[in-house]
Amino acid sequence: MKSIRCGVIGVGNMGSYHARNLAEGRIARATLTAVSDLDPAQWAQFPGVPGFPDSRALIRSGVVDAVIIATPHYDHTPIGADALQQGLHVLVEKPISVHKSACDQLVAAHTNPRQVFAAMLNQRTDPFFQKIRALVRSGELGELRRVSWTITDWFRTEAYYASGGWRATWAGEGGGVLLNQATHNLDLWQWMFGMPVRVRAVCGLGRHHNIEVEDDVTAIWEYANGATGAFTTTTGEAPGTNRLEVAGDRGRLVYEDNRLCFTQITGSVRDFCRQSPQHYAQPAGTEQVFEFPDHGGQHMAVLQNFIDAILDGQPLIAPAAEGAGAVELANAMVWSSLRNEPVDLPLDAAGYAQQLRQLCATSRFKKTTARKQHDEVAPYLVKDQ
Amino acid sequence: MKSIRCGVIGVGNMGSYHARNLAEGRIARATLTAVSDLDPAQWAQFPGVPGFPDSRALIRSGVVDAVIIATPHYDHTPIGADALQQGLHVLVEKPISVHKSACDQLVAAHTNPRQVFAAMLNQRTDPFFQKIRALVRSGELGELRRVSWTITDWFRTEAYYASGGWRATWAGEGGGVLLNQATHNLDLWQWMFGMPVRVRAVCGLGRHHNIEVEDDVTAIWEYANGATGAFTTTTGEAPGTNRLEVAGDRGRLVYEDNRLCFTQITGSVRDFCRQSPQHYAQPAGTEQVFEFPDHGGQHMAVLQNFIDAILDGQPLIAPAAEGAGAVELANAMVWSSLRNEPVDLPLDAAGYAQQLRQLCATSRFKKTTARKQHDEVAPYLVKDQ
Repeated sequence: MKSIRCGVIGVGNMGSYHARNLAEGRIARATLTAVSDLDPAQWAQFPGVPGFPDSRALIRSGVVDAVIIATPHYDHTPIGADALQQGLHVLVEKPISVHKSACDQLVAAHTNPRQVFAAMLNQRTDPFFQKIRALVRSGELGELRRVSWTITDWFRTEAYYASGGWRATWAGEGGGVLLNQATHNLDLWQWMFGMPVRVRAVCGLGRHHNIEVEDDVTAIWEYANGATGAFTTTTGEAPGTNRLEVAGDRGRLVYEDNRLCFTQITGSVRDFCRQSPQHYAQPAGTEQVFEFPDHGGQHMAVLQNFIDAILDGQPLIAPAAEGAGAVELANAMVWSSLRNEPVDLPLDAAGYAQQLRQLCATSRFKKTTARKQHDEVAPYLVKDQ
Repeated sequence: MKSIRCGVIGVGNMGSYHARNLAEGRIARATLTAVSDLDPAQWAQFPGVPGFPDSRALIRSGVVDAVIIATPHYDHTPIGADALQQGLHVLVEKPISVHKSACDQLVAAHTNPRQVFAAMLNQRTDPFFQKIRALVRSGELGELRRVSWTITDWFRTEAYYASGGWRATWAGEGGGVLLNQATHNLDLWQWMFGMPVRVRAVCGLGRHHNIEVEDDVTAIWEYANGATGAFTTTTGEAPGTNRLEVAGDRGRLVYEDNRLCFTQITGSVRDFCRQSPQHYAQPAGTEQVFEFPDHGGQHMAVLQNFIDAILDGQPLIAPAAEGAGAVELANAMVWSSLRNEPVDLPLDAAGYAQQLRQLCATSRFKKTTARKQHDEVAPYLVKDQ
């Protein structure tokens, strides 16, 4: 049986998790054949597996068919493009890049359709979100009217932010909660409901932590059909909430506490509104509750799907190009807040890249880290990617 | 026992309800002694009670000590000011006026502290909101971080809007869901949490109905201490949601479905964030649930409180001056949406009055009503009140 030889680039927190899953045989028809990290001490986690001091050496080693990129965010673009240009299959961690222009550059490097290029958007494997997406796409919920997601249970301590010099800096990470934690929710949102046409946001920069990037976001989105979105996230709140609400012309979905409730209207809200002779009447509805035993296969399922796509042509759960949506939304919210005005989508990618360069250039923030970093340090600052 | 002689000005929907409560003896130490309405047919609801064709005649009749004003919104200011100037006690329906400048004018007419001037902000009698206010004011919730209120269960049909020529027009009502239905929620919000310093909103004008004013609102608010607010309301959604969430430095409140849940953190979220050596730890908390058998005395309790304030000096549930907050918030949201930019508070009252005059002057909307109106027609269009 053919097995895909995988290299993991960046074996910090997430990368070492993926590498262990490969090394310990949890991914069928795949083997860990190389790791790379700027810190050679990290290689020792994987005895017998060749270690490389940089991604270029690993990519050109001849011992890998595919790479998993789990470096700090800025590196995703140059390393991903390099691996694609060298003919490898690529699975890139989220976010696929730090800003939209870099996403475009990375996606443009994928010119050979026989190479598989996927993104680690693991929450797409969650049956709750799959069900919501199906109810929207099937038309059962009716035309979209309003989406609201309050996702404030991404609490992080100061110790978390102090654990890596690159973390939560403009030059090292390129953003905060929107790029790192809530990128999952932004991807799910655009995957389930599509992209809005306009974004307004208020981002608190270091509101809850001693960091320079956003750790608190409240935003309003508008869709082309007039539907609205309200998105709230933070890493500074406890106990925090995770509640997603979706109103359509045929009912409402509420997802919270591992329970998806669908109140389905008999007919259309719009028709009822127009036809009822009563002033205070409400259309009738029925309630269905969906519960699932778990949240799906998550990271391992995405990694297995990547391997199955290479070997069997199985459709990807998350083609990397689709990962650009979450980055564009994150960029638009930060930009709207900095400029104190609405931002239209599609985003002016070059304009935001320029804004981000300026944030890096004018940063006066001195990051103090609590311990020696094991994370790979971003070799590329913000160039015109 | 002394009894207060009450006149009700405008005996349409709400006014006739108040008048019946008085006439049928449900308010202690108060009697219905006069009604006024432009439509004399409405007087017949109250046989034996003198009817007047306009408010000026009722106010000067000598048969009333106090008036309850339940006319269309624009009339609240001139009628209220007239009644106060004539030495009467006044209870005014919500909203106290249509725009902030008119509120200021009405409140300025209250110069004699022996006259009682109250507003019909009946939802302040709800024990759930009283409990939330107490938990915030006592410091048990800690410093305010985030408030979110999704109040989309104000569904109204087209037939409702067609039931009065003044309804849902700039010249007749001065606004839509924010002035009429959600004014309750706006008052409760500022009463529980205080006024924000900046408002951003997207208002859909006639998004769900054939009207010219807002029937769909999504807004972000900012507080001076950095706390944020998210406010969403509409009359076009079913089944609709009523969920209020409040995050503080010592926990979170969630009010929904006649249940108030308080998750109280042991200590302060901020202190935990700074002191914990762990990256992904969460502060511990305990959960308390508050339930109440009903939603309080509502309109009748406010009317009784008005009488008791006159006779016994009892503190008012809702001094009329406090009703200006909800109007200012409503105005600020409409203005932010029209101008497509944030609006700072306190609001430029004259500027918004000018905006509203312009909306009235440039309106091309032809209102069609389904039946003869029984509502009093606003005699005053937007002057520089």
